[in-house]
Amino acid sequence: MEKFIINSALDMHLHLRDDDMLKLVAPLTSKSFSGALIMPNLLPPITTKEALLSYKQRIKEATKEDDFTPYVTIFFQVDYSYSFLEDIKDEIIAVKLYPFGVTTNSETGVSSMNVEILRPTLESMSKLGIPLCVHGETKGFVMDREKEFLPIYESLAINFPNLKIIMEHISTKEAITLLNKYDNLYATVTIHHLLLTLDDVAGGMLNPHNFCKPIVKRYEDRDALQEVVLQAHPKIMFGSDSAPHQKNNKECHHGAAGVFNSPIALQLLTELFERNGKLDNLNTFVSLNAQKIYNLKPTTKPITLIKKDFIVPDVYSYKKEQVVPMFAGKTLLWSIE
Amino acid sequence: MEKFIINSALDMHLHLRDDDMLKLVAPLTSKSFSGALIMPNLLPPITTKEALLSYKQRIKEATKEDDFTPYVTIFFQVDYSYSFLEDIKDEIIAVKLYPFGVTTNSETGVSSMNVEILRPTLESMSKLGIPLCVHGETKGFVMDREKEFLPIYESLAINFPNLKIIMEHISTKEAITLLNKYDNLYATVTIHHLLLTLDDVAGGMLNPHNFCKPIVKRYEDRDALQEVVLQAHPKIMFGSDSAPHQKNNKECHHGAAGVFNSPIALQLLTELFERNGKLDNLNTFVSLNAQKIYNLKPTTKPITLIKKDFIVPDVYSYKKEQVVPMFAGKTLLWSIE
Repeated sequence: MEKFIINSALDMHLHLRDDDMLKLVAPLTSKSFSGALIMPNLLPPITTKEALLSYKQRIKEATKEDDFTPYVTIFFQVDYSYSFLEDIKDEIIAVKLYPFGVTTNSETGVSSMNVEILRPTLESMSKLGIPLCVHGETKGFVMDREKEFLPIYESLAINFPNLKIIMEHISTKEAITLLNKYDNLYATVTIHHLLLTLDDVAGGMLNPHNFCKPIVKRYEDRDALQEVVLQAHPKIMFGSDSAPHQKNNKECHHGAAGVFNSPIALQLLTELFERNGKLDNLNTFVSLNAQKIYNLKPTTKPITLIKKDFIVPDVYSYKKEQVVPMFAGKTLLWSIE
Repeated sequence: MEKFIINSALDMHLHLRDDDMLKLVAPLTSKSFSGALIMPNLLPPITTKEALLSYKQRIKEATKEDDFTPYVTIFFQVDYSYSFLEDIKDEIIAVKLYPFGVTTNSETGVSSMNVEILRPTLESMSKLGIPLCVHGETKGFVMDREKEFLPIYESLAINFPNLKIIMEHISTKEAITLLNKYDNLYATVTIHHLLLTLDDVAGGMLNPHNFCKPIVKRYEDRDALQEVVLQAHPKIMFGSDSAPHQKNNKECHHGAAGVFNSPIALQLLTELFERNGKLDNLNTFVSLNAQKIYNLKPTTKPITLIKKDFIVPDVYSYKKEQVVPMFAGKTLLWSIE
């Protein structure tokens, strides 16, 4: 049977939530990934060293059966002092910036993307070598939000040339063009933005489990993302943006944004790369690029993918938590051994 | 208190369904409208005289407390004979054409929009003076489907110059441009396409009750529709496309397409026209244009709108049927007296 080994899979954009949800979803990542960059948008968001260390501890607890490294982050604030950042530097991998109100739990995000308002914190980060992860969307028309945000990325890249800026979960072909223009811009790409379009949310029946922010876009965007990812573009890393929500909070009159894909991400990536004859590039996309960009030395944890059907469970549960994964009930071509 | 009277409101595109759902929703239209053009996409669709007369009877039964005229239609088939159409002519107001698979219960729709395949039926209709109502969407990318269909409308308009063709529930500014180009093209516009954009479906939380086909589009499309409707463009009629689905079939992993707006359509229209200082044009949009285009003489049934808050119910129910209306729980500025 056809096999493929991924050595140190890294998910550079992951939501683990907290409490029982953390206990449900964390092992579904730690089982197959060596490490993951963990988003800080809890309620309240992680903005102190105490909250950070305590969250890291809870993640370690939830993943203790696996050799897994949580690369934790803090939630960007305009008033972080240099000394605070210096003190926390060795505990975090990056600072995550959310504009106000653009996605789940971003109500405490920055209310202005004016460079001068952000400058003190970004100068400190730049000096300390702390990368900046950004949810790059405006509050414009849903299909245009990322494109409208690109001038802000550009302004950040020009104003802070020594700051590593990661354009998170890029979803448009225009973002790729910008990524190529500035040395200090990098990006993560999700599996759902690589495989889906708006048609998979609202083209047939409405599918809340494919609904996320940024929303999946047009075929030409999906194809452009596939092209650069399949060639293992050195500035692009895998980041699942796996974002679990309770089933009841998705299948309702007011559905939350987020695709839960952790348990199937590696299988789907293997299928995509194999179908395009690019399996040789998969380890680079899913591990080596992140190692170089973030200067990581993840543990070696070989995961064997075998070409054998895997039926995606309808739901993952723990106590009262129930999460429906992307592609629930569908049959994938690859399984994890 | 400010008042406005609508004399013979007509809804020229309405889904009443059947059985208990019919009993639930039909009175919510017949209470305030003098008549409505009823869609034939039941399961199975209405394609025979017997089915048509029986459905008309069930609608009359469900609306017997009101003076209400159901203008019924049959579901387009390529093999309708001239004699069948001649025989049924006085019972129907139009024939409704669905391309295969584009919306709810369109699985028996035409599989090709090739003019030569449609010609026999359309020639007969043209000779008999039976209008054609069309759901004009391709199976392309969800935001492009109407635009991609416009060349088909154009070809129909050119090939059948004596056929009245109604472009149903238009949703794009490009459709308006085409409408103005051919004398035999007409259109209906819904209240949701006049008020909503894709942001109201997937811009914040996901809202299945604003999800419909054609999907609500961009701000420039909504604004272009408002502009022609507010000026009471003589070729454009109100058609709610109110399309009830069970709450459970909307708030689920596989949500049905359709906005249920019958109980609030007149209130919302009054608000829209009044806000724009165009109340004088409302009767033309919601009644006179349809009277001229379809040559109707509806009963006079004055409906008084008063400027008084109306809180939209969370749900309308009858036996096991539960339908959530558009804007459930919101407060409208106008009420029906």
